[in-house]
Amino acid sequence: MAKSKLNVAMIGYKFMGKAHSNAYRQVARMMHPAAEPVMKLLVGRTPDALQAAATEYGWEKIETDYHKAVRRKEINIVDVTTTNDVHKEVVLAALKAGKHVFCEKPLAMNLKDALKMAETAEAAGVKHMVNFNYRFCPAVALAKQLIDEGRIGRIFHWRGSYLQDWIIDPSFPLVWRLDKNVAGSGSHGDLNAHTIDLALWLVGDISEVNATMETFVKQRPKQAQTTGGLTAAAGEGMGEVTVDDAVISLVRFDNGAIGTFEASRFAAGHKNGLSFEINGDKGSLRFDFERMNELEYFNREDPAHAQGFRTILATESIHPYLQAWWPPGHVIGYEHGFTHSIYSFIEHIVNDTPASPDFWAGAKVNAVLDAMVKSSDTRKWIGVPVIAPAVPV
Amino acid sequence: MAKSKLNVAMIGYKFMGKAHSNAYRQVARMMHPAAEPVMKLLVGRTPDALQAAATEYGWEKIETDYHKAVRRKEINIVDVTTTNDVHKEVVLAALKAGKHVFCEKPLAMNLKDALKMAETAEAAGVKHMVNFNYRFCPAVALAKQLIDEGRIGRIFHWRGSYLQDWIIDPSFPLVWRLDKNVAGSGSHGDLNAHTIDLALWLVGDISEVNATMETFVKQRPKQAQTTGGLTAAAGEGMGEVTVDDAVISLVRFDNGAIGTFEASRFAAGHKNGLSFEINGDKGSLRFDFERMNELEYFNREDPAHAQGFRTILATESIHPYLQAWWPPGHVIGYEHGFTHSIYSFIEHIVNDTPASPDFWAGAKVNAVLDAMVKSSDTRKWIGVPVIAPAVPV
Amino acid sequence: MAKSKLNVAMIGYKFMGKAHSNAYRQVARMMHPAAEPVMKLLVGRTPDALQAAATEYGWEKIETDYHKAVRRKEINIVDVTTTNDVHKEVVLAALKAGKHVFCEKPLAMNLKDALKMAETAEAAGVKHMVNFNYRFCPAVALAKQLIDEGRIGRIFHWRGSYLQDWIIDPSFPLVWRLDKNVAGSGSHGDLNAHTIDLALWLVGDISEVNATMETFVKQRPKQAQTTGGLTAAAGEGMGEVTVDDAVISLVRFDNGAIGTFEASRFAAGHKNGLSFEINGDKGSLRFDFERMNELEYFNREDPAHAQGFRTILATESIHPYLQAWWPPGHVIGYEHGFTHSIYSFIEHIVNDTPASPDFWAGAKVNAVLDAMVKSSDTRKWIGVPVIAPAVPV
Amino acid sequence: MAKSKLNVAMIGYKFMGKAHSNAYRQVARMMHPAAEPVMKLLVGRTPDALQAAATEYGWEKIETDYHKAVRRKEINIVDVTTTNDVHKEVVLAALKAGKHVFCEKPLAMNLKDALKMAETAEAAGVKHMVNFNYRFCPAVALAKQLIDEGRIGRIFHWRGSYLQDWIIDPSFPLVWRLDKNVAGSGSHGDLNAHTIDLALWLVGDISEVNATMETFVKQRPKQAQTTGGLTAAAGEGMGEVTVDDAVISLVRFDNGAIGTFEASRFAAGHKNGLSFEINGDKGSLRFDFERMNELEYFNREDPAHAQGFRTILATESIHPYLQAWWPPGHVIGYEHGFTHSIYSFIEHIVNDTPASPDFWAGAKVNAVLDAMVKSSDTRKWIGVPVIAPAVPV
Repeated sequence: MAKSKLNVAMIGYKFMGKAHSNAYRQVARMMHPAAEPVMKLLVGRTPDALQAAATEYGWEKIETDYHKAVRRKEINIVDVTTTNDVHKEVVLAALKAGKHVFCEKPLAMNLKDALKMAETAEAAGVKHMVNFNYRFCPAVALAKQLIDEGRIGRIFHWRGSYLQDWIIDPSFPLVWRLDKNVAGSGSHGDLNAHTIDLALWLVGDISEVNATMETFVKQRPKQAQTTGGLTAAAGEGMGEVTVDDAVISLVRFDNGAIGTFEASRFAAGHKNGLSFEINGDKGSLRFDFERMNELEYFNREDPAHAQGFRTILATESIHPYLQAWWPPGHVIGYEHGFTHSIYSFIEHIVNDTPASPDFWAGAKVNAVLDAMVKSSDTRKWIGVPVIAPAVPV
Repeated sequence: MAKSKLNVAMIGYKFMGKAHSNAYRQVARMMHPAAEPVMKLLVGRTPDALQAAATEYGWEKIETDYHKAVRRKEINIVDVTTTNDVHKEVVLAALKAGKHVFCEKPLAMNLKDALKMAETAEAAGVKHMVNFNYRFCPAVALAKQLIDEGRIGRIFHWRGSYLQDWIIDPSFPLVWRLDKNVAGSGSHGDLNAHTIDLALWLVGDISEVNATMETFVKQRPKQAQTTGGLTAAAGEGMGEVTVDDAVISLVRFDNGAIGTFEASRFAAGHKNGLSFEINGDKGSLRFDFERMNELEYFNREDPAHAQGFRTILATESIHPYLQAWWPPGHVIGYEHGFTHSIYSFIEHIVNDTPASPDFWAGAKVNAVLDAMVKSSDTRKWIGVPVIAPAVPV
Repeated sequence: MAKSKLNVAMIGYKFMGKAHSNAYRQVARMMHPAAEPVMKLLVGRTPDALQAAATEYGWEKIETDYHKAVRRKEINIVDVTTTNDVHKEVVLAALKAGKHVFCEKPLAMNLKDALKMAETAEAAGVKHMVNFNYRFCPAVALAKQLIDEGRIGRIFHWRGSYLQDWIIDPSFPLVWRLDKNVAGSGSHGDLNAHTIDLALWLVGDISEVNATMETFVKQRPKQAQTTGGLTAAAGEGMGEVTVDDAVISLVRFDNGAIGTFEASRFAAGHKNGLSFEINGDKGSLRFDFERMNELEYFNREDPAHAQGFRTILATESIHPYLQAWWPPGHVIGYEHGFTHSIYSFIEHIVNDTPASPDFWAGAKVNAVLDAMVKSSDTRKWIGVPVIAPAVPV
Repeated sequence: MAKSKLNVAMIGYKFMGKAHSNAYRQVARMMHPAAEPVMKLLVGRTPDALQAAATEYGWEKIETDYHKAVRRKEINIVDVTTTNDVHKEVVLAALKAGKHVFCEKPLAMNLKDALKMAETAEAAGVKHMVNFNYRFCPAVALAKQLIDEGRIGRIFHWRGSYLQDWIIDPSFPLVWRLDKNVAGSGSHGDLNAHTIDLALWLVGDISEVNATMETFVKQRPKQAQTTGGLTAAAGEGMGEVTVDDAVISLVRFDNGAIGTFEASRFAAGHKNGLSFEINGDKGSLRFDFERMNELEYFNREDPAHAQGFRTILATESIHPYLQAWWPPGHVIGYEHGFTHSIYSFIEHIVNDTPASPDFWAGAKVNAVLDAMVKSSDTRKWIGVPVIAPAVPV
């Protein structure tokens, strides 16, 4: 029997477009999903670049008008990998067309937009998911499993940080990620969005936050330059950096835990250092993405003289998602998180079960992001509104 | 020529008393100080226990009245290792008697007391020092050296934490360290005091703080029990824990850097986890006391393809204080920091140079500690007052 | 202009077949090779299983007769991923048909066969390559680069080991890898082959070896069972394990360095622990595949007080092969080594340059493997014959 | 009641003399031994240097004739820290005088001498001990405990190495440790002696060995120079290095385990890198002295999805010897091993129980050392003779 197929239209084709394309290509071959995704349509504004990307990544056709793209009858899934400022309009158009939507994080530029998107998605009765890809890193999924098994117990502490170092040089140009109108924020939306999602998933809801943001380099050259896939608009002289270079925050969780967050692009030596630690009354967990195949676990119930943080190499076939890949110890990489995430979305579509993290989860992250910005602006503790779907899932 | 001698009277003989005694015993044998400290007089209130400690640690005599002790003519140095609430009165008495004073941290219960002590010490014209022993850990002193050599450059980030896990069990009794009247605070004064001092030394003055404190276990059994050298007063039933179990804080430094602090006794798996990281525009430094012989250093000026955090095993004879000890790779331990600290104090006395960290440095730590408490109480950012000696040193 | 294509026939479709298929699929999309490989023909003996694999991995057609397969006119590359005992006959058939040949390691069951294959390949004038995939791990390629740049200097020590733990349980069944007739040897050919190749590449030729082999569990159950992709033949009772469980060896290199090798499937906690260390008079290098994105480097020419092993996260675009993948810190996985290896093979075919590691390199590994077996049998040091192509390359 | 005392005469006062002196000074203060050692007599040949050392280390008197020293009536313990070539004569003299003897490792220059010393000691009815100080490192003692508890099970593999890098520079002078007449051997007796003792203690008796030794730098300058406490004799021109720079060895244990040893002074980046790993059918253990407070332990009986090497910070009061020192996480250093070793010797003297490791244990190490030398000379496997006390202990 032929496997059913799901036709995908993807909007955007830069870094995330490359990663999503890879995931669609890999998922059918490696993970036996319930339906096979077909890379049908790549959507963008610049025909030449778009066609080149489609050829390179393996998309069947291109389309420069996303409105047309999302309305095409044969399309089942719309995947949104555009810059953050365009998420909302594309997602709403896709939802209006009755498509399942898979959207890059952060879901929206602010909580209001995110709620609108979540509500619309809910009303549309389609599957909706935000690509918080780090949840689908096996070691992180194992952390969730150990917590759910009760091995950590009552949680006291969360310590999350996401550190990079790619804009330390003041001569690094004014790329779109440093422009508030396009990116919404700097390290905050780009990096904190990920750690906030993990905290909400692993620890629970955040009740209030206290943050401060900083821009260490306030002006940068406007010359055209492409660095690491980021193109700076041509220009002359210096321009204002309108986003944060770093943000630090204290938080309190509903369950009584306290936590810290840090996001920075000025932490020399950290390349993609998403890390967290959780301390509970039964044990602790530690994760650092730069060693993404490992989860550290301290068990207070081990024999007293033989306790210690153990490094679990999460590559056994019993570990989350690993059945699909290689024998134990044959580590996997960054892009596999995307493959697992898309696998999960496909399963939810085929089985008609609620996707997770859905747009409500995306809205929760936006709620915390907004509260942190407001806290930084007002220098006060800011409460985080409760986000709940109209119909609980 | 016989080496000159410095007679010491030490007040207090618990954990810190043991560590200081060891340092006095070791410093003359291993470090060739300019004068030899003589363990003359051990001072405490309970004669039997006091005599037992004196015999065990090697003190010549005992004295139950500290007023008499500090006034004894032959005494040159008064060393204060009592509970925090008694520091002030003993220190002031010693200063009045014209003695050099070496005091455990935190210097005082609050900034006001600390300033009084610093001013009095300054006026007395004696040497005064606070035992921030972690400054004297070779790897930490090496961090200071690398910063002073300009290898880190402009500092953007400080990330300091001091994590322990010894009171996670709710059945752990109500020891003096959990009683605000005696200890002043919990993890805050005990642990944060150390990391704050290191931040001030390594990064610079802190301008404002934003902290929150938490007591996870609010009541504990009052039964008498001795655990890890901490004796709980006899009692029945449950008593209130009046100090913080954990504190987290954001800070801003005068030089534009931002930072975080965390102190906790509820971080499972961390035993004496004083750690920090500093990120600058030329490099980064990382330290974790549980691997106290190591300093991690990232140099942005290494060849681009060969950059990485390097683990410096700070045990070479060219590393701070190591000349005194063993060949490379023969690691040293916790107590050596005390030996180096006391060595430094002796050198300053003999050479008549300003000791460091002196009581002003101690007062600076108290200023930050107080500001954090006030911030936690008021839920606001609190400015840290500028502390400067009357006569600049 | 349409990119030229290279049609591939692959013999074998188990673990290695899956990994090679993935590489063919990925290389064109991610690495911009000079020609595009086309997954034309999958070859095996069992039609149903073969077709299932072809469908799963994405091969266009199947063929059950490898003789026919390798003679097909449209085929440019024959890729051999069969069990070791079949390499020779398939490779020779492919060479006779004038195809480029890409063969799994170890090249042959013994040196004699390997030399025959190398000589035949040389005479055929085609490109030939052995898939020593670990050479193509970016951190390992970086090690080679640092050595070639002279950063390690004169080499004194090699320390190579490849540790796994999957057959510790005596109840693990008698799979083909434990049958000498099929596998040739146990941990030796499977694991040592990789570390020997790396030593030859990174340090230089080995002049003599002294090895001992051990089989800890001498009998295993014959019941049919599939574990980790390895199927044990059906049977009853216990059967003899005819291969080594572990092998340890001393070696001397031509350049005066000395070294050790260890391969084991009985090292609890090691999953795919290929590791090596090289010590020279200018520096040292360390690698452990379980952290495959990292290379540790000690530079004796760093400032004396700031020396230490640094952990290079080999994920920068300037690191070998990384241009093709993700931004810094976005780590890659096991399978990427295969993609890089096949990329390299394609480049050599298109550019008509000698592939590396070629069959001579494969023969060199067989020479060392054979010498180690002979050493273990005779309990003597055994010289390794010099392997050189008839026409030096 | 006054504690009984044990008067010590120590022969030798260089590096080991400093370490033993420190241990005598510390043991009474920190460890509550059953008797108090008194640093009575320091013995050496050069009066001025001897007196300076005695003053520095705290010995009551000096004596330049060791024959007289060991015969003094008040002396209870003779401690031998001389160069290796003098151990035998001093030890035999001390035994003849009926003293308890504590001797540095290696016990003797060869097995014959070691047996003579062990037999004489046995006949003398005194306590005899070799200072294999690494056994008394808490993490190593914990390894022994875990093995004895059955947590490792049947042992398959031993992997021991002791790596240093202090003589890589060819200009490093010809110190006594590079002179075979004085030192007996190079890295072999100095470093391998330690790892061999640990292997014998932790794994069991070694039945045969296969070793090869190498001297990378064969001539060195004879100029007088003192480096790291090692004084090179004055001279002109170059002299022959008559000892090994490095040695590597394969071994087979009586219990069926196989193992490797490596000792080198040419391993850049390793300062005092004594490390070992043990793999058994229930678990594994790893230790590296440069992180001496840590023991890594892999437990195959942990839940399958939560297995991993755990890092035990061996600083809890329940860990071996730690009761004497500081709270958890307050790490100790190299010299503490000596304090624990001497503590143990004192306890055995007072309680009249057999000391361990005694001279028979020392002889066992000499037996293995000798066998490895013979193996290197003959290029053959060499059996290790069984060493057993005349009267089993």
